[in-house]
Amino acid sequence: MSNKVNQISSLYKEKNLDGILITSPANISYLTNYLSRDSWLLLSKKGNYYLTDSRYTAEANKYLKPVFLVKQINGTGNECLKKLSRQLKLKNLGFEGRHLTYAQYHRLSQSLGKTVNLVHTHNLVEDLRQVKSADEIEKIRFATKITVNALNFIRDFIQPGKSEIEIAGELERFIRYNGGMGSAFNIIVASGPNSAFAHHITSSRIIGKNETVLIDVGAEFQGYKSDLTRVFFSGKIPFLAQRVYAIVLKAQKEAIRRIKPGVSTAKIDQAARQIIAKNGLAKAFGHNLGHGLGLEVHESPSISSASASVLKKNMVFTIEPGIYLPGKFGIRIEDVILVTQKGGEILSGSLNK
Amino acid sequence: MSNKVNQISSLYKEKNLDGILITSPANISYLTNYLSRDSWLLLSKKGNYYLTDSRYTAEANKYLKPVFLVKQINGTGNECLKKLSRQLKLKNLGFEGRHLTYAQYHRLSQSLGKTVNLVHTHNLVEDLRQVKSADEIEKIRFATKITVNALNFIRDFIQPGKSEIEIAGELERFIRYNGGMGSAFNIIVASGPNSAFAHHITSSRIIGKNETVLIDVGAEFQGYKSDLTRVFFSGKIPFLAQRVYAIVLKAQKEAIRRIKPGVSTAKIDQAARQIIAKNGLAKAFGHNLGHGLGLEVHESPSISSASASVLKKNMVFTIEPGIYLPGKFGIRIEDVILVTQKGGEILSGSLNK
Repeated sequence: MSNKVNQISSLYKEKNLDGILITSPANISYLTNYLSRDSWLLLSKKGNYYLTDSRYTAEANKYLKPVFLVKQINGTGNECLKKLSRQLKLKNLGFEGRHLTYAQYHRLSQSLGKTVNLVHTHNLVEDLRQVKSADEIEKIRFATKITVNALNFIRDFIQPGKSEIEIAGELERFIRYNGGMGSAFNIIVASGPNSAFAHHITSSRIIGKNETVLIDVGAEFQGYKSDLTRVFFSGKIPFLAQRVYAIVLKAQKEAIRRIKPGVSTAKIDQAARQIIAKNGLAKAFGHNLGHGLGLEVHESPSISSASASVLKKNMVFTIEPGIYLPGKFGIRIEDVILVTQKGGEILSGSLNK
Repeated sequence: MSNKVNQISSLYKEKNLDGILITSPANISYLTNYLSRDSWLLLSKKGNYYLTDSRYTAEANKYLKPVFLVKQINGTGNECLKKLSRQLKLKNLGFEGRHLTYAQYHRLSQSLGKTVNLVHTHNLVEDLRQVKSADEIEKIRFATKITVNALNFIRDFIQPGKSEIEIAGELERFIRYNGGMGSAFNIIVASGPNSAFAHHITSSRIIGKNETVLIDVGAEFQGYKSDLTRVFFSGKIPFLAQRVYAIVLKAQKEAIRRIKPGVSTAKIDQAARQIIAKNGLAKAFGHNLGHGLGLEVHESPSISSASASVLKKNMVFTIEPGIYLPGKFGIRIEDVILVTQKGGEILSGSLNK
């Protein structure tokens, strides 16, 4: 049996559960090494099942045996699960409260009836996913490489007269022509005053002269994501933007310098935040310093002062300090970092900043 | 107060509720005429509130007053809602079971405590959204026009030697250059035997000579979606593909011909399915005939034999029969139809098929 499945099995047994129902597509993909669609995973003491409908059973059988038994859903997933729960004599079954809607939970609970006790579990698979395998790191590395190339490619496009959405279109096209499945999330192209809004939605705004153009983009490769931000200028760099850029860059460097196994994420966050605060701009940096990434663009660990996480070797996350001056502009610099034995490797290190 | 908000207010009052918490982004966008992000809507007898955090309050105040009072979330959304529920003396509060995870429901329920009784409501806003306003129809019309233009543009690109993912990249770019926010869903480009798989994920497969190339694509415009499918050929059209194409086209025409207010969706589905069955291919058409679309790509009504819906004027949905021959090819033809007073208007009618 796969090591990952073994680890989750130990965890649900510790909680006196007979099994666990995994409904998060990312968690299913992780445990099966298989890009999951329209499926559920039932891990139990008496066998591990992959439940899917007739469209996918042939392919699933090919890839998932013998670790998982593929069970074809003919009626509803709930009916299929009811039969299985009787067959496996499940009494206490864990489920992922973050990955079932209330309505789904309600119907499942009614279908299973009183013989099965559904138990809410919290982040069992998500916690395991924080530390990446060599294979996962290679995929993130490649997704990051595509994104680095896309940002290098787009430099010459950033000219007065182009619109934000056109730039996003060129990036998306580049990613698909260069080995990516597509962008990992809605590409942010934020020009001029729009860049001061950390969550700007790419618009049809036309770029003017000597403006900041903030681009936040990632590629997806075999299910794995990257996430990078760079700020470009359509002409000369205004003096204030130069100053702010230097502060953000210094904050990022100070944070990255402290990355190594055993250090708390709060300390990493603090290192960047102090640099920005020293320059009197604490309030202009309103979001977390970074987030884990892998099968999802945002996953654990969160790199924030509120988090109690401690870095481990082979965690992968972003470091992305930003300074946003409403009505003026915003600067954010974001790289993807791998925690190594002794420090942090910037996977996007070849990209200018 | 807006008519839509009035209608929902009547519905929750009929159910003896003091208010309803709307958590679906599409439902919030619908009720507010405002593209919602990171927000909740609380409709209550004593006032209607838009809850969002500091990033969005200035903009929300500008667009939503006086219909909605904008409430800034400072701590968590649950804390904010707790205060409001006390202030408004809410006892029975409806919520959308499909749009809260079990974990969210659980935390909300704990936060509100025993004084508030949370009541699961089903599709109140979704049902209202089935019949579109003139403004909504114009937006879907424009999203459809962009998609029609994208498919016309891509014809010349479909050549042996191009990959599926490159074609998807060109379509995505075209949409963004021509008024769309981007594609409404992951573009499907399925070539050769891949087209036999109704839910193919666009791959790096290179298109060969004389192959079917099925493209399923939609654009997003101001929150509204389109969804069209056409099949192209990279060279000559094989004889069997011609035959199957003619059957699918006839099935689609027969279904569209029957569209008018008062007709059941089951009858529409049956009209198409009978044509395909007469040709001995019933089992090769395994999915529903169509689905409503608007703020979401898939919404009510479902055009299927299992559905009990009856068509009403100003419903908008797809009609998309398909025949899939495993290992060979698949043909699907999909258009967007508006129900008019007397029949159905094909919004994508200008596109060859």
